[in-house]
Amino acid sequence: MDKDSINQVIEGGLLPRRALLKASALGLAGSFVVPARASQDWMTHAGEPQGEYGQPSPFAQLKREQTGGHPLGHAAGSSSTPLQDLNGTITPNSLHFERHHSGIPAIDPARHTLTIYGDVRRQLQFSYEDLLAYPMETHQYFLECSGNSFRNTLNEPLDLTAGSLNGLVSGAEWTGVPLHYLLDEAGIDSAARWVIAEGADAAGMTRSLPMKLALDNVMVALYQNGEPLRPAQGYPMRLFVPGSEGNISVKWLQSLKVQGMPAYTRDETAKYTDLLANGQAEMFSLAMGVKSLITSPSGKMTLNRKGIYEVTGLAWSGAAAIRGVEISADGGVTWEPAALQSAARPMALTRFRLPWRWVGQSSILQSRATDTQGNIQPTRTVALARYSAAGFYHYNGIQSWHVSNAGVVKNVYV
Amino acid sequence: MDKDSINQVIEGGLLPRRALLKASALGLAGSFVVPARASQDWMTHAGEPQGEYGQPSPFAQLKREQTGGHPLGHAAGSSSTPLQDLNGTITPNSLHFERHHSGIPAIDPARHTLTIYGDVRRQLQFSYEDLLAYPMETHQYFLECSGNSFRNTLNEPLDLTAGSLNGLVSGAEWTGVPLHYLLDEAGIDSAARWVIAEGADAAGMTRSLPMKLALDNVMVALYQNGEPLRPAQGYPMRLFVPGSEGNISVKWLQSLKVQGMPAYTRDETAKYTDLLANGQAEMFSLAMGVKSLITSPSGKMTLNRKGIYEVTGLAWSGAAAIRGVEISADGGVTWEPAALQSAARPMALTRFRLPWRWVGQSSILQSRATDTQGNIQPTRTVALARYSAAGFYHYNGIQSWHVSNAGVVKNVYV
Repeated sequence: MDKDSINQVIEGGLLPRRALLKASALGLAGSFVVPARASQDWMTHAGEPQGEYGQPSPFAQLKREQTGGHPLGHAAGSSSTPLQDLNGTITPNSLHFERHHSGIPAIDPARHTLTIYGDVRRQLQFSYEDLLAYPMETHQYFLECSGNSFRNTLNEPLDLTAGSLNGLVSGAEWTGVPLHYLLDEAGIDSAARWVIAEGADAAGMTRSLPMKLALDNVMVALYQNGEPLRPAQGYPMRLFVPGSEGNISVKWLQSLKVQGMPAYTRDETAKYTDLLANGQAEMFSLAMGVKSLITSPSGKMTLNRKGIYEVTGLAWSGAAAIRGVEISADGGVTWEPAALQSAARPMALTRFRLPWRWVGQSSILQSRATDTQGNIQPTRTVALARYSAAGFYHYNGIQSWHVSNAGVVKNVYV
Repeated sequence: MDKDSINQVIEGGLLPRRALLKASALGLAGSFVVPARASQDWMTHAGEPQGEYGQPSPFAQLKREQTGGHPLGHAAGSSSTPLQDLNGTITPNSLHFERHHSGIPAIDPARHTLTIYGDVRRQLQFSYEDLLAYPMETHQYFLECSGNSFRNTLNEPLDLTAGSLNGLVSGAEWTGVPLHYLLDEAGIDSAARWVIAEGADAAGMTRSLPMKLALDNVMVALYQNGEPLRPAQGYPMRLFVPGSEGNISVKWLQSLKVQGMPAYTRDETAKYTDLLANGQAEMFSLAMGVKSLITSPSGKMTLNRKGIYEVTGLAWSGAAAIRGVEISADGGVTWEPAALQSAARPMALTRFRLPWRWVGQSSILQSRATDTQGNIQPTRTVALARYSAAGFYHYNGIQSWHVSNAGVVKNVYV
């Protein structure tokens, strides 16, 4: 990198994505020092020994925010991943977002079974142990609640963090049994077009999955980020439908009924149906759109010094892998391609990064993702236009962060 | 798949890796049933609501085993990942192996700094906040203790689990600041060939890193699997040297001294030096060899039924990506290629899988990894031959599991 490239300030302060390969002109270091050799107090005595199960530092104890809850019962609600405090593409299991319709059942795996019945040649029942013997697959996927980012569909922008606004999305490495093994073993009737999945929670959460999707890349997931599923994520087993709205990945999966028609359950009629602007309702609209957001700098942060920052965030698409992410620092007038910092995996979170020089200018930071099928993330206005004013599912509009002259970052609508 | 391929039993029961794409002939399902509709007790009431920080199921509370500890002080010891209970390629942070020389310091990040000094144009000191503003990278890497699998260097095979024997290796997604940014900013003297890294634990763990390696893919890691490092993994910052023995990835990193010579510290002379069979000692032998092990079926497990099992495990190499893994069920006479179930990333754990039919035959299961540089995992005999009888670092011999007629799986030497 030469001085020219580092000083080449694109609109709003964005720098080319290769600008930081050599950073001697960065001037980021805090101070020039003669090294002090005085020991900190934690060096004067042995620390705690290794343990059986690790915990976070009390100085970095992250928590999920309770972003939803039914006034008549806390068991129906959600909690969101603190996206602004994380980096990379994996969400630790303790911080993966949650959305429950009747709380988290405490299931004994020895007494739980998965039954496949309906229009099949033979009805089958699988224990947890049975499934552990099956061939498995491992993939990194995002999971996003259909209602994620609904707060940005409201009339006035809320001054909240990236996680509070958009944290009903997480990323993990999922391992499980491809569903086609189990359906094939049961023998599907040629007229069967749907699989009805029911969970073993008190809500009996039930969704209808198109057979075409069920035979594609759907799995019965048993492991998340290497370890057995957590109860909040469906232990001992859940359906996992990559790229689709989270609700269809039925947790605590206890039965799959094969039939010719959808079940039209409450959870896909009263909820998870999209009311459109033209008055019609769209059902079984499962695929999540192409989407991204900047996680840093983001809402409720304050820039404490002038200089170079890394603008970073996450992008994903329910249809494909992410092909590119562009960043704007001027509210969408000009765009600069970001570097993608993780392999472009289909239906997985992708981390993007771009250097940005902030010298006190008022800016509006935005990210815009494009997937390998050519789908482009829409503006808020375009994203909202398709749905009725009462709609709040599948919102994937561009997230805008205003940075004030004083460095205060705030959610805004552009 | 036709009947022929599923019935084509290769030596010892191994099946071709494509044999399970259609599994109607598998006969794995537990039972044919008329589905019962009686609810389990956990369906009769709402469960616990979503929480701020998730926990594992009490039915699947995994723990690390304490595999080493100094008799005079528990603060020097290690604990190993329960590899036999995990799947996929990510190790959850709570279960990542640990090896400490004087326990885990409880560091306040606001009072911790990283100093770069020695043969540099300007000495620099970075706060944690300073580093958070730097450009970062995200990569999935394995980390392995140099002494991993040392128990298999002993004269008699111990009847232990895969994790007890080989669990000083884990896999994670690491995010941090490439070290070359920081060294470049300090300005390295052209004669400087080494970087001396010191940790802020009571042991002052110090290792010498060749400059060529330091300028390659080394990072100052700040995040592990998305979240800030855990104290046991170096919070607030650690060196991360991909592919090298774990000890060089100095935790609680507080200084980097640039100089012309190695420091020859106690931690690289009294320890972490390899005594060879010819009486010479090999120093700074950092790269971990190509290695693999079957995690299931593995030691202390019992096969409770005859039929098809998935043989699965992990492979890695400090030099490159994994190109292939072969499985033997007859103690190394014949080999069958396994399917690799994760992208071949350099210096990352790779999951492999292969179906195996067990009908009660006595078998010896082995895996043998090859990396993209052509390095092949050696037999135990060959792996041991290079080192003195007192040596126990860098052991990467093939792990052998004996399956008895009764299905009991046990560690053996072949």
